Amino acid sequence: MVGGVAGGASCAARLRRLDEAAEIVIFDRGPYVAFANCGLPYYVGDIIADEQALLIASPALFRDRFNIMVYTSTEVTAIDRPGHTITVRDLETGQSRVERYDALVLSPGAAPIQPDVPGVDLPGVFAVRSIPDSRRIREWITGHHATRALVVGGGFIGLEMVENLRHRGLAVTVLEKLSQVMPPLDPEMAVPVAQHLSEQGVQLHLGDGLARIDEAPQGGLRVVAESGTPFLADLVILAMGVRPETGLAAAAGLRLGARGGIEVDAQMRTSDPRIWAVGDAVEVTDVVIGQETILPLAGPANRQGRIAAESIAGRATQFRGVQGTAVVGVLGLTVASTGASEKGLRRAGVTNFETAYLHPGHHAGYYPGARPIHLKLLFSVPEGRILGAQAVGAEGVDKRIDVIATALQFGGTVHDLAEAELCYAPQFGAAKDPVNVVGMLAANVLAGDTALADWRSLASTDALLLDVREPGEFVSGHIPGAVNIPLPQLRRRYAELPQEREIWIYCGVGQRAYFATRFMAMHGYRTRNLSGGYETYKSFAALCGRGGPIDPMPLARTGGQVEPH
Amino acid sequence: MVGGVAGGASCAARLRRLDEAAEIVIFDRGPYVAFANCGLPYYVGDIIADEQALLIASPALFRDRFNIMVYTSTEVTAIDRPGHTITVRDLETGQSRVERYDALVLSPGAAPIQPDVPGVDLPGVFAVRSIPDSRRIREWITGHHATRALVVGGGFIGLEMVENLRHRGLAVTVLEKLSQVMPPLDPEMAVPVAQHLSEQGVQLHLGDGLARIDEAPQGGLRVVAESGTPFLADLVILAMGVRPETGLAAAAGLRLGARGGIEVDAQMRTSDPRIWAVGDAVEVTDVVIGQETILPLAGPANRQGRIAAESIAGRATQFRGVQGTAVVGVLGLTVASTGASEKGLRRAGVTNFETAYLHPGHHAGYYPGARPIHLKLLFSVPEGRILGAQAVGAEGVDKRIDVIATALQFGGTVHDLAEAELCYAPQFGAAKDPVNVVGMLAANVLAGDTALADWRSLASTDALLLDVREPGEFVSGHIPGAVNIPLPQLRRRYAELPQEREIWIYCGVGQRAYFATRFMAMHGYRTRNLSGGYETYKSFAALCGRGGPIDPMPLARTGGQVEPH
Repeated sequence: MVGGVAGGASCAARLRRLDEAAEIVIFDRGPYVAFANCGLPYYVGDIIADEQALLIASPALFRDRFNIMVYTSTEVTAIDRPGHTITVRDLETGQSRVERYDALVLSPGAAPIQPDVPGVDLPGVFAVRSIPDSRRIREWITGHHATRALVVGGGFIGLEMVENLRHRGLAVTVLEKLSQVMPPLDPEMAVPVAQHLSEQGVQLHLGDGLARIDEAPQGGLRVVAESGTPFLADLVILAMGVRPETGLAAAAGLRLGARGGIEVDAQMRTSDPRIWAVGDAVEVTDVVIGQETILPLAGPANRQGRIAAESIAGRATQFRGVQGTAVVGVLGLTVASTGASEKGLRRAGVTNFETAYLHPGHHAGYYPGARPIHLKLLFSVPEGRILGAQAVGAEGVDKRIDVIATALQFGGTVHDLAEAELCYAPQFGAAKDPVNVVGMLAANVLAGDTALADWRSLASTDALLLDVREPGEFVSGHIPGAVNIPLPQLRRRYAELPQEREIWIYCGVGQRAYFATRFMAMHGYRTRNLSGGYETYKSFAALCGRGGPIDPMPLARTGGQVEPH
Repeated sequence: MVGGVAGGASCAARLRRLDEAAEIVIFDRGPYVAFANCGLPYYVGDIIADEQALLIASPALFRDRFNIMVYTSTEVTAIDRPGHTITVRDLETGQSRVERYDALVLSPGAAPIQPDVPGVDLPGVFAVRSIPDSRRIREWITGHHATRALVVGGGFIGLEMVENLRHRGLAVTVLEKLSQVMPPLDPEMAVPVAQHLSEQGVQLHLGDGLARIDEAPQGGLRVVAESGTPFLADLVILAMGVRPETGLAAAAGLRLGARGGIEVDAQMRTSDPRIWAVGDAVEVTDVVIGQETILPLAGPANRQGRIAAESIAGRATQFRGVQGTAVVGVLGLTVASTGASEKGLRRAGVTNFETAYLHPGHHAGYYPGARPIHLKLLFSVPEGRILGAQAVGAEGVDKRIDVIATALQFGGTVHDLAEAELCYAPQFGAAKDPVNVVGMLAANVLAGDTALADWRSLASTDALLLDVREPGEFVSGHIPGAVNIPLPQLRRRYAELPQEREIWIYCGVGQRAYFATRFMAMHGYRTRNLSGGYETYKSFAALCGRGGPIDPMPLARTGGQVEPH
C-alpha cells in the first residue's frame, strides 16, 4: 500500500482478514498512518484537545493485530511496472531501496490546492492536510496571540475551519471566489448558510479571489483580493479544494481520466492489472449523472480500500460508484446534500427534472423546539426518480439527507419517499415526516395536480402573482406586483381573478398555495405554485441582491462558474 | 368521515384537493378533531404547556380552508348499508338524525385496554386517549399534590407517561405483565432500556400483572399486583395497549379480520364497496412477515387516509402495507425499531435468518461526545434481506433506524447497508457509519468469513470459550469458563488451543473477535464469533438474572408470552 490513511489502511486490514499468509506492507510519506483526517479542523479548534485521539491505529497496532508492517516517513518514489518493484526512500536517512510487489495499491490522497499568487509561502499561511499542519496552526495561534484569521475558500474544509477558528475566539473572514459558499449546493440553498455565518459574526467576502499575501508593516499579514480589497489577518488558511496526487501514477504511465484522477475499473484496478488505486486520487462514477468524477471523501475511500482488498484476494466485488453524500456542521447549522445539484444536472445537459422546495420543522410543530429545515429535492420527470437533495438547518438535517440518500441508492422515486415509514414521536419527526411531504409534493407535480413555477422566470413572466397568505403576512413583505387574497377568502372571491391569464400562487412555504392551485385548477384556471413560497423567494431575492422580482440570469451565470473542472 | 383525528382528517383534506365539488363531512364523538394524539403525554408532562398547541386544525379551519363541515361531539351510532345512510347522534342535545352518503370512511381509532379487574374505575385511575383525559390527569396531579404515580404497562405510551410524570417531579413505578419493557423489542434489547429507567429512578416491576386497585385508607390508591405485591400511588395510568374500535363496523356487518380489526383491501376499502376504513382500527399487511397485523400509529393512519381519498376519487392507488417503524424517547434514551423482531419471526415460523449485534458510537470516536448505540439487525440467510432492526441509545438512534427502514422498504440487503453512502463529518457519523458496519458484519456471515454463535446456546455448548480482550478487561468481568488470549498475542499463541474443538470467540463488542475468528479459521480452526461481544452477553445475562452462562430458555419462553395475539 502506497499511502496508509483511509483507503490504504482499510485495504491492508481487510486484505489480512482475507489472506493470513500474504506479506502486507504500508508505506506512508508522513509521520502517521490511519489518522483521522476529518478531525484535523477540530484539533485546530481544540474541540479535539488531544492529538493522540486522531491516531486511530498505530504502526504497532498494525503489527500486533494484523501482522502488517508499516513504514512511515517513507516515500515511494517510482514504480517499475515490468519488474514489479517500487523504489522506496526513507525520508529520515535519505536512503533508497527497492521492494518487490505482487499487488500494489496506490492510496496517495489529494493535496490542498496552492494558488499561484505571491505570498502563499509566507509564515502564517497554512493548509490543513496533516497532523503536523494542524499542530503548526495551533502553535501559531497561541504563539502569535492571533485574533484575526482569513480563510480562503468557503467549501467543506473552509467552513469547518471557520467553525473551529471561531471556537478559539478568532475573528474570521472568508474570501471565496464564487458568489456563494458551499459549492456543492445550488446558490439559493447557500443563501441561508451565508446568512447564518453573517449572523454569527463571520465576515463573508464572496465573488472575489485571492490576489496576493504580503507581510503587513504593522505585523501580521495583509491579504489582497482580486478586486483590490485588502484584509489584515494574523493567519491565513488556504482551503480552496484539493487536487488528486497523481504524480507517481502518471510517472509510471498509469492511465489518468478526463478529470485528472487515476483511472480505475469497478474493482479499483488501474490500467495495470497488478496495480489498484483507491481514495481521493481516483476517478469514480457518479451514479446519478453517469459521468466520472473525483470525490475526496473518507466514506467512499474506505469502501474502495475494502473492494481493492477483495479484488486482490480474488473475490467477486464491485464498487457501485458514488452519489456524493456529504455534510458539514458550522456554528450550529448543518448543511448536507446527496446526489446531483440543479447546476450539476444542467452542466451535464440533463433537463427533464423538476425541483421541489420545502421548509418543514425538524419535528412536529406542536412539540416545542422545532427548527426549520430548508429542503430542496430534484427528481426526474415523468419517472419521478430521485436525483438529489440538499438540506440546511439546525437539527435533523443529516437524518433526512441520509434517508433520501438511501432511497436514491435503490433508484427510488418520489412515491417511495411519500410512502416511507419513518420514526415518529413528536420530538423526532412528524406523522408526515419532511421526507414524506417532499415526496408527496413531488408526486402531486408528476400527477399533474399542481404545476410548479420556476423562480428564475419570475422576472420575465406575464402571469398574475397571487399571494394567498393572511393580510398581516402580506404587509410585512411580499413579492412586488402580487395581489393578496387570503386562502380562506378564495372560495368566495376567486371570480375577481382573470380566467384568461396564468396565475402563479405563493404563500409562506408552499402548502396554502398548493391548496389554492388545486381549488383554482378545478375552477378552470391555469395555475402554478411557486414552490417553497415566500421563504424560497427570499433566498432567490438575496441572490440577486435586491428585493424585486427575481432576475432569471444569476443561476445561469453561476452555473458555469461554480466548479471550474 | 366517521372520526376526525389522523386518518379521517387526512382523508377529508386530501379528498377536497381531488374533488372541489364533493360535499365532505366529518363526524367526531369527541370535542376536537385533528388533534395531536401523540402529543398527549407531553401535555400531561407540561412539556407542551398550551393545550391549544395540540389542536392542529379547528372546525373553522376545515370550513374556511377546505369547505369541509365538521360536527364534533357527534356520534355515528349505526350504518344502514343498503340505504347508504348513517344515524348520527348529537351528544349535547341527545338528538339523532339520518345522513346520506355516497362514500363512507370509518376512522374510529382504538381504545385503551381497560383490564377486567376491580378498581379500574376509581377516581385517580386514568387512560390517555383524548385531550380531556390529559387535562383531567394534569388537574388531578395539581389538585391532589400527587407525588407518586403507577403506570400499568411498559410499552410506548407507558414509557412516554413515565418520561412526563418524571418531568413533573413524580416518583414513578411501572407495573408490566411481561418480563421486559418495550414489547416490540427482543428481550435482550430491552435490557439497556430497563437499566436506564432504573438509573433514572424509575421503579420497574416486571413479569407481574395488575390484580386490583383499592382506595388506600390513608388516601390515594393501593394497587395490588397479581403476585400480591402492593403499591401506593396518588394516580394510576393504564397504558396496557389499545383495542381497535370495531363496534360500529361489526354491527353493520362489515368483515373483521383474524386479528380483530376491520378488514380492508389495498385501497382501504372494507367488505362494502361504498365504505372505506383507515387508521388504528384496520388490519394491514406486515410487509416483512406477510401476515395481517394491527399497527396503531399515526404515520400509517395518515397515509391510509390519503389513499382512501384517492380511491374514493377514482384514482389508482395502493397502500403498501406496514413495516412497523416506531420510536420512543424516555428520559434521554431513544428506542427505535423497524421490521420484524426475532421473536416475531420465530412466532411466524421463520427460521432462515441470522442476528448481528453491534455497539458503535453514534459518531466518530475521535470526536468528543460519542454515545453508544446498541444495535441489532435481523437478516435472511442466504439472501441477506433486511428483516428488521432495533436500536437503543442516547443519540443518533432514530437516524439509523430510519435509514435501515428505508433500505427495508426497497427490499434491500445487508450488502446495500454495507455500501450505503451516508453523511459523514465527525460530529454526525463515521467514515464507516454504524449502518455500514452492521451491513459488513452481516455480509461477512453470509460470505462464510465468520460464523456467529447463538448467545442462547452458550449454556449448552461444548465449545471452548476464548476471550481475546486485554487482561485488564478480562479481569474486570468475563464469561465464566472463558480462557483469555489477547488478540495481539494470538498469532504466537494460537497453538495452545485445541484444534479438534469448536472455539467460540468474544471480545468487548465483536470486532476483535471477528479478527480472531478470521485468523483462526485460516489456520484450520472451527470458530464462531459471539456477536456483540461482552456488551451483548451482559444483556443476556441480565435477562437470566445471574452472571453465569446464558440459559437457552428465557427467549423461547418469552417468545410465547410477549404479544398474546
